[in-house]
Amino acid sequence: ETRAKAGDKVVLVRIETSPDDIHGMHAAEGILTARGGMTSHAAVVARGMGKCCVVGATALLFDDDAASCSAGDITVNEGDWLTVDGTSGRILLGQVATVEPELGDDFHLLMSWADEIRTMRVRANADTPSDAAAAREFGAEGIGLCRTEHMFFEGDRIQAMREMILAQTADDRRRALDKLLPMQRADFEGIFRAMDGFPVTVRLVDPPLHEFLPRTAEEIDLFAEKAAISSALVTRIVEKHRESNPMLGHRGVRLGITYPEITEMQTRAIFEAAAAVAADGVKVRPEIMVPLVVDANELARQREVITRIASEVLGKVDIPYMVGTMIELPRAALLAGEIAQHAEFFSFGTNDLTQTTFGISRDDAATFLPRYVELGILDDDPFQVLDRDGVGQLVQMATWEGRSHRSDLKVGICGEHGGDPRSIEFFHETGLDYVSCSPFRVPIARLAAAQAALRNGASTRKVAEKRVHRAESRDAESTLVRASPSPA
Amino acid sequence: ETRAKAGDKVVLVRIETSPDDIHGMHAAEGILTARGGMTSHAAVVARGMGKCCVVGATALLFDDDAASCSAGDITVNEGDWLTVDGTSGRILLGQVATVEPELGDDFHLLMSWADEIRTMRVRANADTPSDAAAAREFGAEGIGLCRTEHMFFEGDRIQAMREMILAQTADDRRRALDKLLPMQRADFEGIFRAMDGFPVTVRLVDPPLHEFLPRTAEEIDLFAEKAAISSALVTRIVEKHRESNPMLGHRGVRLGITYPEITEMQTRAIFEAAAAVAADGVKVRPEIMVPLVVDANELARQREVITRIASEVLGKVDIPYMVGTMIELPRAALLAGEIAQHAEFFSFGTNDLTQTTFGISRDDAATFLPRYVELGILDDDPFQVLDRDGVGQLVQMATWEGRSHRSDLKVGICGEHGGDPRSIEFFHETGLDYVSCSPFRVPIARLAAAQAALRNGASTRKVAEKRVHRAESRDAESTLVRASPSPA
Repeated sequence: ETRAKAGDKVVLVRIETSPDDIHGMHAAEGILTARGGMTSHAAVVARGMGKCCVVGATALLFDDDAASCSAGDITVNEGDWLTVDGTSGRILLGQVATVEPELGDDFHLLMSWADEIRTMRVRANADTPSDAAAAREFGAEGIGLCRTEHMFFEGDRIQAMREMILAQTADDRRRALDKLLPMQRADFEGIFRAMDGFPVTVRLVDPPLHEFLPRTAEEIDLFAEKAAISSALVTRIVEKHRESNPMLGHRGVRLGITYPEITEMQTRAIFEAAAAVAADGVKVRPEIMVPLVVDANELARQREVITRIASEVLGKVDIPYMVGTMIELPRAALLAGEIAQHAEFFSFGTNDLTQTTFGISRDDAATFLPRYVELGILDDDPFQVLDRDGVGQLVQMATWEGRSHRSDLKVGICGEHGGDPRSIEFFHETGLDYVSCSPFRVPIARLAAAQAALRNGASTRKVAEKRVHRAESRDAESTLVRASPSPA
Repeated sequence: ETRAKAGDKVVLVRIETSPDDIHGMHAAEGILTARGGMTSHAAVVARGMGKCCVVGATALLFDDDAASCSAGDITVNEGDWLTVDGTSGRILLGQVATVEPELGDDFHLLMSWADEIRTMRVRANADTPSDAAAAREFGAEGIGLCRTEHMFFEGDRIQAMREMILAQTADDRRRALDKLLPMQRADFEGIFRAMDGFPVTVRLVDPPLHEFLPRTAEEIDLFAEKAAISSALVTRIVEKHRESNPMLGHRGVRLGITYPEITEMQTRAIFEAAAAVAADGVKVRPEIMVPLVVDANELARQREVITRIASEVLGKVDIPYMVGTMIELPRAALLAGEIAQHAEFFSFGTNDLTQTTFGISRDDAATFLPRYVELGILDDDPFQVLDRDGVGQLVQMATWEGRSHRSDLKVGICGEHGGDPRSIEFFHETGLDYVSCSPFRVPIARLAAAQAALRNGASTRKVAEKRVHRAESRDAESTLVRASPSPA
């Protein structure tokens, strides 16, 4: 970050990245990590930023004291030139000349043809107003996944977030949440304005709280001083929050169940923002999404909190909204019928669903998964191409069960597979309403959705009829069709 | 360990335990941990040892420097008296008088009635010859789970194991494995002798390799010195092996696929031991179990290695054996039909299956799962009582699919649920052939299996007919029925 501010071009090289690397990632031209795969933190965040990134370079050994890393006989020191090729995954020593790609008229013409044919909508995963604007430029018809936790890493927010986590009473927790509320509300306002008329699916806070806590002794001291408590106590509480398998820990809706005041604050921020921008004439369609649900009871409880706060905040202002859930754990897919009774929409989180169905952590797969593909045990990396046999079985089961209990259930997908052509074809065949992917993959998704429609026997005319039918039968959606800048 | 050797009675108090605490656990009268639940490491190992253990005491904060821990205002220092009540989960300050329970004739009479009624067999999870002997005393009809990795923590073995893991070439790895072979073979010989006539299911190595590596700087230096490599290199390789979510990492069959020489060594140890004890007239029935399978191709590959080594070692010696797999990940349950084509038996690993179906790490659940039960979101802790709606659906699906592809597929369960009466009833209804649990829970399982048979309409006569039928139709099993010391 310091070097980039001084005007240098930098590559961020790390064993792996975590949410507190976000500033370093913003500053970097490219990112290289020793661990991880297609859906690891570095890959997902870099893709969202449209940055070049190579992950899973398992041969790398790091020497932090020397600020160097090595692979075999080759050692690279801080300050050396490296070139990262995100397409081939090659790392080249030295500086290679590069050219910025440009999108011309041909591209827009091709996209317009694709939009005429496809029957699935394409949304983008976007967490900030600027991501949302980029998503619109690439033709996204809404946001399928707005991750609220990224909002907590900026500037002063992390201090308030840490105070919230380390609070020993619900009152202390509320006081810290009150500091976060206006910041989060401002973010939502920006996103709603950028998405004028398009739906925005906001996912309630998802990651394990430990990700937000200070790590180094320095960070702990700084936090303790600001919060006026002892460093020793902070250290002990941080240690207590450490988890053996954070991916399967105290996160997602489990946070909303144990600390309902977090759900309350987030819901309040969403609806206060919605009311504010609606007053300016912006059309706002919030869809509130509860993550990591495994049981209908969890969703019913969170739904009660959300609808209560919504009616408190909105009063007589009429803003149509939906409450739905991620389907990202096998049990949710197995019990989708029950869950649908409390959900207006499902969004498959195929990253986590793949992790749990296979029992494979995306961050730890680099040591064996490439070998599986090499040996032909698996045809593809299941984090790149959706595994139809296993994960796909759960997606189909949940879609059918869900719709058999609620015929107008809206079903989409917001995992990384939303930007993969072969997976998109499967989602089309399964009858999903939309896919959502990183803004930079939206054009690919638009094209792949059209190809899937063609391969599955859609003629341009049938497709056009379908669109008209959909526009008539769904009020909220019909608005979107008309507002869409994609060629009609 | 030191205090216990000096003759003191000690309680082991830890944030959580890991496999290298095994010696401390052996030495302790009771175990208390801040993290974990019913199936966390401390709970599973203590149960196997028949020791009192309380886990998930989340209020505990540790101060390592002061060798003390505190809960609220109460601080306990190393050397203070504590009494642990494993039934109620209470920790009492000071020394409470205790009485050792005794099993009398009434107990044996009750068990004999249960054995007449029940139709499911009851095996035990046992890893050592002494566990196996204890299991036999409690009436276990075989070993349903012999975890081979515990064998690697004793004395010199850990050094050889670490050399194996840190080896940079397959040759170095084989050299280290050669050191482990005779030790592992001796363990199997002891277990086979104790189980004379009864089947022994040996699970190939399962945990992430990182669990075996040195942790502290002291351990690293000691290892590096013995192995004659630099501490800095060891540190770097250890760091490289660290995983974000080890439960979902490079473990189980993934080790056997990436390092087939591990499977080779373990298979060789099993069959060399089997041949040696068979030469002494001991009846030996090895069942080799491949853990963490998600795809039929994995099992097919491991099966090829196992049968090749078996025929190399056995030559013309006729020892009937089986190759099967754990079903412990959702994808294995979903694809059980394909997997059954390469498996003579399935054993449900309901601990891991519950973890992945729910997306809940057993070690990290103490911060939210008790609240879920308190609020009635879940009726029971799914690690204590099998979740019929979700996990149970997968168990049924896999049993049916498996048997529809291989009608004589033997199906059992070796997770902690094998010792829980309500879960045992479900397994009976699903038609499982056996349950396997800790030796100390075998009597409970025998009784619960009988109650399940009675509640599901079995008369003593029908049961007797079934047993005869089974004895006739399955040669290997019929031997066992005759050899069984349980009242016929």
